[in-house]
Amino acid sequence: MMRQSLYSAAVCDALDALGLRRQSPRLPLKPLTTSGVLVGRCRTTLWANIFHEDPKPYELELVAVDSCQPDDVVVAAAGGSMHSGVWGELLSTAARNRGCVGVIVDGAIRDIAAMRAMSFPAFARGTCVYDSRDRQRVIDLDVIVEIDGVRFHPGELVIADEDGVVVVPKGVETEAIRRAWDKVHAENVVRDEIRGGTKASDVFRKYGIL
Amino acid sequence: MMRQSLYSAAVCDALDALGLRRQSPRLPLKPLTTSGVLVGRCRTTLWANIFHEDPKPYELELVAVDSCQPDDVVVAAAGGSMHSGVWGELLSTAARNRGCVGVIVDGAIRDIAAMRAMSFPAFARGTCVYDSRDRQRVIDLDVIVEIDGVRFHPGELVIADEDGVVVVPKGVETEAIRRAWDKVHAENVVRDEIRGGTKASDVFRKYGIL
Amino acid sequence: MMRQSLYSAAVCDALDALGLRRQSPRLPLKPLTTSGVLVGRCRTTLWANIFHEDPKPYELELVAVDSCQPDDVVVAAAGGSMHSGVWGELLSTAARNRGCVGVIVDGAIRDIAAMRAMSFPAFARGTCVYDSRDRQRVIDLDVIVEIDGVRFHPGELVIADEDGVVVVPKGVETEAIRRAWDKVHAENVVRDEIRGGTKASDVFRKYGIL
Amino acid sequence: MMRQSLYSAAVCDALDALGLRRQSPRLPLKPLTTSGVLVGRCRTTLWANIFHEDPKPYELELVAVDSCQPDDVVVAAAGGSMHSGVWGELLSTAARNRGCVGVIVDGAIRDIAAMRAMSFPAFARGTCVYDSRDRQRVIDLDVIVEIDGVRFHPGELVIADEDGVVVVPKGVETEAIRRAWDKVHAENVVRDEIRGGTKASDVFRKYGIL
Amino acid sequence: MMRQSLYSAAVCDALDALGLRRQSPRLPLKPLTTSGVLVGRCRTTLWANIFHEDPKPYELELVAVDSCQPDDVVVAAAGGSMHSGVWGELLSTAARNRGCVGVIVDGAIRDIAAMRAMSFPAFARGTCVYDSRDRQRVIDLDVIVEIDGVRFHPGELVIADEDGVVVVPKGVETEAIRRAWDKVHAENVVRDEIRGGTKASDVFRKYGIL
Amino acid sequence: MMRQSLYSAAVCDALDALGLRRQSPRLPLKPLTTSGVLVGRCRTTLWANIFHEDPKPYELELVAVDSCQPDDVVVAAAGGSMHSGVWGELLSTAARNRGCVGVIVDGAIRDIAAMRAMSFPAFARGTCVYDSRDRQRVIDLDVIVEIDGVRFHPGELVIADEDGVVVVPKGVETEAIRRAWDKVHAENVVRDEIRGGTKASDVFRKYGIL
Repeated sequence: MMRQSLYSAAVCDALDALGLRRQSPRLPLKPLTTSGVLVGRCRTTLWANIFHEDPKPYELELVAVDSCQPDDVVVAAAGGSMHSGVWGELLSTAARNRGCVGVIVDGAIRDIAAMRAMSFPAFARGTCVYDSRDRQRVIDLDVIVEIDGVRFHPGELVIADEDGVVVVPKGVETEAIRRAWDKVHAENVVRDEIRGGTKASDVFRKYGIL
Repeated sequence: MMRQSLYSAAVCDALDALGLRRQSPRLPLKPLTTSGVLVGRCRTTLWANIFHEDPKPYELELVAVDSCQPDDVVVAAAGGSMHSGVWGELLSTAARNRGCVGVIVDGAIRDIAAMRAMSFPAFARGTCVYDSRDRQRVIDLDVIVEIDGVRFHPGELVIADEDGVVVVPKGVETEAIRRAWDKVHAENVVRDEIRGGTKASDVFRKYGIL
Repeated sequence: MMRQSLYSAAVCDALDALGLRRQSPRLPLKPLTTSGVLVGRCRTTLWANIFHEDPKPYELELVAVDSCQPDDVVVAAAGGSMHSGVWGELLSTAARNRGCVGVIVDGAIRDIAAMRAMSFPAFARGTCVYDSRDRQRVIDLDVIVEIDGVRFHPGELVIADEDGVVVVPKGVETEAIRRAWDKVHAENVVRDEIRGGTKASDVFRKYGIL
Repeated sequence: MMRQSLYSAAVCDALDALGLRRQSPRLPLKPLTTSGVLVGRCRTTLWANIFHEDPKPYELELVAVDSCQPDDVVVAAAGGSMHSGVWGELLSTAARNRGCVGVIVDGAIRDIAAMRAMSFPAFARGTCVYDSRDRQRVIDLDVIVEIDGVRFHPGELVIADEDGVVVVPKGVETEAIRRAWDKVHAENVVRDEIRGGTKASDVFRKYGIL
Repeated sequence: MMRQSLYSAAVCDALDALGLRRQSPRLPLKPLTTSGVLVGRCRTTLWANIFHEDPKPYELELVAVDSCQPDDVVVAAAGGSMHSGVWGELLSTAARNRGCVGVIVDGAIRDIAAMRAMSFPAFARGTCVYDSRDRQRVIDLDVIVEIDGVRFHPGELVIADEDGVVVVPKGVETEAIRRAWDKVHAENVVRDEIRGGTKASDVFRKYGIL
Repeated sequence: MMRQSLYSAAVCDALDALGLRRQSPRLPLKPLTTSGVLVGRCRTTLWANIFHEDPKPYELELVAVDSCQPDDVVVAAAGGSMHSGVWGELLSTAARNRGCVGVIVDGAIRDIAAMRAMSFPAFARGTCVYDSRDRQRVIDLDVIVEIDGVRFHPGELVIADEDGVVVVPKGVETEAIRRAWDKVHAENVVRDEIRGGTKASDVFRKYGIL
């Protein structure tokens, strides 16, 4: 149900209200394959560029996808690197098998058309046609990662849509969702009043939100 | 009628011919919610990033939307800041109530999906999920603003589509539109001749346009 | 037939296997007008920004489009310049007349809507509404050009889609296509096994590809 | 005394140890006029770009410099704007009269040679020869500002040298300085041991610092 | 005499007063070899990146340096390209022989140490160790060029120092220099008053300059 | 002796002549602590950003410095990251003890003043005051690394000065140095002729170099 009603901006506003004002990377992490809202729990991977023959190609990527849990969102912290497409159709297929619901890549992906055809949500900085082999590799799994200075802890709730990506710290999760829920409803009221012809300034004075 | 026939490139070429060669920002101000051409008059707002609690949140934003006139295009000169989403569904709703036909933001917007659902044209550098409260604010209304060095005066005609955003100085407006109109028709002739098999070089020699 | 089955990532992997690991620019050269895969042979043009009245406007552009051969893809190496829209509807029309199948521009294009209406594939860094006249011009035709350090020789095979742009050196063309073909089929097998529930790590161990 | 012995890296390490790991902007704010370490208390100014005739030119700049206190470091948060040189010789002269010891500008300055001649420390992103009049203005004084996401509160201790700029939150100031002091001395010991020929790994194992 | 007393900021302020507010590129064009102020007349060269074997290497560069006139400042408009070092010791030597007093490169130079040793003023975006042969070439001489949107006409007066580069249109040259001269003297008065303890706000109220 | 006479541009030209035209990163890797030419053999380290508590802080950094050999130049491939200062005074001291002659960092360093005081050559993208602990770490030693697409193999000769950084592949080392040597002498002849008043174009026609 939450999946139908929440969206990134409402959750972000709820976190603002809780004093957590830095929970969304200010980066174009675009939904390249699907529309709609992606909601799940962070499965974190930390990536590095490499330039030599990888003695163990894809090693931790494979561990990551094969050990995904239902509702996992793979978070690939690649520091914005466009060195290769670190995620593609085969990883999507394998991850989905284990219940993974999408991927957020601070870097590049490939096989866009195929992932779109399978309706697998993939948010990324862009695309790169190069295979990641001997170009990038996962150097750590299930550790705290950062994207644009925003920290993503393993297991935290993450919401992503066209507006952006928001991560919810564990300790405030219930409260944040409750408030986001309230915000969604309050905005509906505000919108209806404005639509009815009330001035935005009057509505803001009355409800205190915008 | 003008709305059906004009597009940014034709107007830009007309301005070129009038010696006004710097009337379009060289920036990706993309139509994030609608397709088609946005035509209207500049309602200018100047924005600044802030980092403290705003004593008067949304103050001038609210004035701006509540005082919109028919055919206004809100121009938000935010210097390309992605610090927050300065425009969203509620401002769109309020502005449209007063006749505003769209918004051009040199910065970020949010509530993309909702604005698309209401067919409100919004051109922007991108999206940001953060509320603008205590992050950005309007510091001046109805002043000359610049986007990428191009000056937008209050009341000037602005044309925006997928190709770009063009602003027409008051003094040459009638002449520019007349010439744009001619250019559109001349291009139709040229295109038809080329389609008919004439070489581009021959057509250019004959008509002097491309 | 090749057109139906090849895509940029498969060709890129084939080139990797042949030791040619730098055949795709790491740049967002996006398909702005069509979807699908563009395949053809490089017709190279080298562009420069200019700031004075061009004594011979469009001179080499016109030569380029009027001398296109069937299957040509015009490659416009403009160094990422957004100074003007160097390609548009009229050039597309003229080039297509001679058999040109698309254009790849490391720079800006305009008339997006018109080129989309005519289904002319155009890959570019973005759009710019300015006419190229007295802003950019072709300074050389049919020479080796570079985009992001990747060399494009006249006549080389180029494949472009949503994932990226890949150029195939003449000497390895047959072999690269053969291997790409094999890769496509091998990936189909791998994908089916993963879909069937086999772990990605097991599949990679078995087939050695991902 | 503190002025002679402290430097930015030692203070930054002390703040790290206190769990405050984001107290230095990751930006090239270079000492353009002097060498050595600048130490003082933040006098914050928030700047915005403008494009119209300023009805009250230099208004808050003048208030800022004329109300400086001994040991003030003017912090000009201009968001990295290079729109004009917001600080120069005359402001330096006026500010120094009131006891100001230097300026840190997240933007551009001018009159470099003159400020160097008067030994006035100025850290900035670079230079710009344009007067700030009708180009940038102070929109707020003595408010919290941010440079690259790092918050500078009025009155906080700031240390700047060739390595970078570090700001010390009020609550931990005494403790941070004490620890920085200890760190300086510990590093002296470590350096001497390494110089004496001990391996870095052995020294790190022994002292736990590097 | 003008050489001793003028500097870029004073000239820029004079041009501002004449309504010419865009006569300096907002780019880090740094004096890499000398200190002091460079004053001369623009000898313009327009550059393009190339990627093939140049049939006539250095052709127009050689023409440019061998035809320099006394007081010429070679202006190399290379669009900020760092593709090679387009200027170095040998060109400096040849150009100086003909009276050239310095070079301003919107791009890269090399042989910094040698040019410093010969006290040849070179302003540039930075350095690049590659020879320009088969990498960049002059495509036009003595034409209007632009650096960051600022137009440099052949023969115009140019002033460059650590603060920036300013170009003076022919038509206002005498007036601009006269006003710059006045500005230098007015600033001396203002500075002395401020040094004497008068508040900056009082001085600005009295003299109207800052 | 080679140390006295070689410089980066001459070696780069020699490599050009051998058909190796991509041996220098086009990046501002500036000598932040010394002047003069750094010559040595690449000791490569590959770095990654991290965001969690490093279980083995400084592990491979310490191995790297403690195992340096005479004439080693530590090459730190950090992908341009400014996340922390990965090199500083203590590592310099330890590395020099083992014979290391300098460091080239595609990223940030700190303790600039101290390294300058000890005359330790350090080339870097810039400075960052943060300790690298829990921010960046070496993930591989003695592997091929890339800086801006240029490959640095362990043990290869590297030359760095104010103009740039050049790396010489093993197979052509002797020949490249011989040719660089010749180039230095040929340039001396050319320079002297130009100084003597011969036109640059005549000299180029005669000697074929510039």
